[in-house]
Amino acid sequence: MLQELFTPSVQHALDLAGIFVFAISGALLAVRKNFDVFGMAVLAEVTALGGGLLRDLIIGAVPPAAFTDLGYFLMPLVATALVFFLHPEVERIQVGVNVFDAAGLGLFCVTGTVKAYEYGLGLTMSAVLGLATAVGGGVLRDVLANEVPSLLRWDRDLYAVPAIVGATVVALCIRFDALNGVTASLAALAAFTLRLLALRFNLRAPRAWNRRSATADDGQ
Amino acid sequence: MLQELFTPSVQHALDLAGIFVFAISGALLAVRKNFDVFGMAVLAEVTALGGGLLRDLIIGAVPPAAFTDLGYFLMPLVATALVFFLHPEVERIQVGVNVFDAAGLGLFCVTGTVKAYEYGLGLTMSAVLGLATAVGGGVLRDVLANEVPSLLRWDRDLYAVPAIVGATVVALCIRFDALNGVTASLAALAAFTLRLLALRFNLRAPRAWNRRSATADDGQ
Amino acid sequence: MLQELFTPSVQHALDLAGIFVFAISGALLAVRKNFDVFGMAVLAEVTALGGGLLRDLIIGAVPPAAFTDLGYFLMPLVATALVFFLHPEVERIQVGVNVFDAAGLGLFCVTGTVKAYEYGLGLTMSAVLGLATAVGGGVLRDVLANEVPSLLRWDRDLYAVPAIVGATVVALCIRFDALNGVTASLAALAAFTLRLLALRFNLRAPRAWNRRSATADDGQ
Repeated sequence: MLQELFTPSVQHALDLAGIFVFAISGALLAVRKNFDVFGMAVLAEVTALGGGLLRDLIIGAVPPAAFTDLGYFLMPLVATALVFFLHPEVERIQVGVNVFDAAGLGLFCVTGTVKAYEYGLGLTMSAVLGLATAVGGGVLRDVLANEVPSLLRWDRDLYAVPAIVGATVVALCIRFDALNGVTASLAALAAFTLRLLALRFNLRAPRAWNRRSATADDGQ
Repeated sequence: MLQELFTPSVQHALDLAGIFVFAISGALLAVRKNFDVFGMAVLAEVTALGGGLLRDLIIGAVPPAAFTDLGYFLMPLVATALVFFLHPEVERIQVGVNVFDAAGLGLFCVTGTVKAYEYGLGLTMSAVLGLATAVGGGVLRDVLANEVPSLLRWDRDLYAVPAIVGATVVALCIRFDALNGVTASLAALAAFTLRLLALRFNLRAPRAWNRRSATADDGQ
Repeated sequence: MLQELFTPSVQHALDLAGIFVFAISGALLAVRKNFDVFGMAVLAEVTALGGGLLRDLIIGAVPPAAFTDLGYFLMPLVATALVFFLHPEVERIQVGVNVFDAAGLGLFCVTGTVKAYEYGLGLTMSAVLGLATAVGGGVLRDVLANEVPSLLRWDRDLYAVPAIVGATVVALCIRFDALNGVTASLAALAAFTLRLLALRFNLRAPRAWNRRSATADDGQ
């Protein structure tokens, strides 16, 4: 019954929207890295589908959803075409992209947690996989582009925390038998809002204490 | 019947040849990166077997072929030994290596597509996995060596396109029930020839339009 | 009977100890790379659990042990907290960390080989997966941190060789029906001792012959 949180068509539309905005971020990074159009498509696909792919391999859901739903595969190609032809315009609405990316983050941490739980994982590890679903694609994107993953960097606004909060709320709802379309939406909304707040107020996570005493490349 | 495209021994010999030439490219990159002999072996194995490993994990063919056929594992070690002792000579025949690499590309995009289809994937996603089989090892090689993947770079000759063509031809043959040893060979030959043409005439894919207006690091 | 090498609680305690020391090395690299506390946790988890995760995906043991045993997940968080608050002290006992890391290496190459064999792989490929279990986490750590994997670098002390020796000894013991708690411990001890000797005497593996004649960036 968990999978009936939303009607299938609503769920599918939300998935496609999340995939689309993640793909945009992948294609934009590819342009910044001076990749060709195929590099753009690869990075768009990996960013959009990488997190869910990782989750599906780990829970044993093979072939992964990314390889059974043609729409999941085509959406990043649409995003690639858009960025290919309208790159400056897409860059200009970076704020808009950030908002959509936050929406994708909120959505994926919820659906990822639910799917992992349905495949028999414990509540804690389901939440961990929800987090991995939400952030995994971005990490793969940065690794392929030979960049330090944005997720790990100190000088970037909070990204993991909103997804952790969203996934944890979902796990708690499952625990107390209170997961439904409303609570799931609220969990996604919480992650979405937190991410927007982090962007607006440049919220960051602390680094290890006393680094200065031990590292010379602090300002790196 | 699909797996009977070629006699098993012919198929196996072709696989080993493809694995060998991909392994050579991995070992050569390891030498350029100043790795030790174990680094060479790791990079040779990953380059040669990484694409097929990725495909097998995704279609659920575990343990993957790379871990059940001892020849698949030993071939990259032979390539490593060859490059270890005869590095300058192997570099000198770089043109030859490129030709063999093109042959591996053609072969793997065909066998990868066929295997994915046999495991129940749709035609489009089978072709995508054929492409992943052909280029995945090279991407893993570059990621491990901490380089921007050659596949994604604008300033490299076409590599994905030949594999896409080969995989698409195979998918179309399956669709129209026309896949046999001859058509499969022609698909591999098409990919092989296209790759050689790309190398000969420095064919490249375009980058996004209007980058200059938006990026400062264009010449990077 | 293979899995009864040690009593379950002894085996579990050894696993947790190995996970802990690998996690410490991940968290320390995160501090050096100036990552925030979440980056530290991600790198600690990946270093500690990545090798076993890779092995479990390849042998088809899903969900992987890393996602079914809560202790496996929590241990790297403890290591992260320790490094977060006591970073200079942990750095100061780097020698101690190296000793523990060598112990983890010895342990994981043995347990990885045994588990792969239990899942039906051949002896050679079981040893290869034992090696992958022992060194895979460190490679993933370096890839995520955007560094050239320490495993592959020429200017680092032997790391793969001790694990290869340990895994090979285990495979030979299985072959001759001589694997038990004592021989398994001796295999782990051999790998552990070899790694300490490599650290003590700066043992390194050779690079390809005649590189100078062919590469300009030798001193890189």
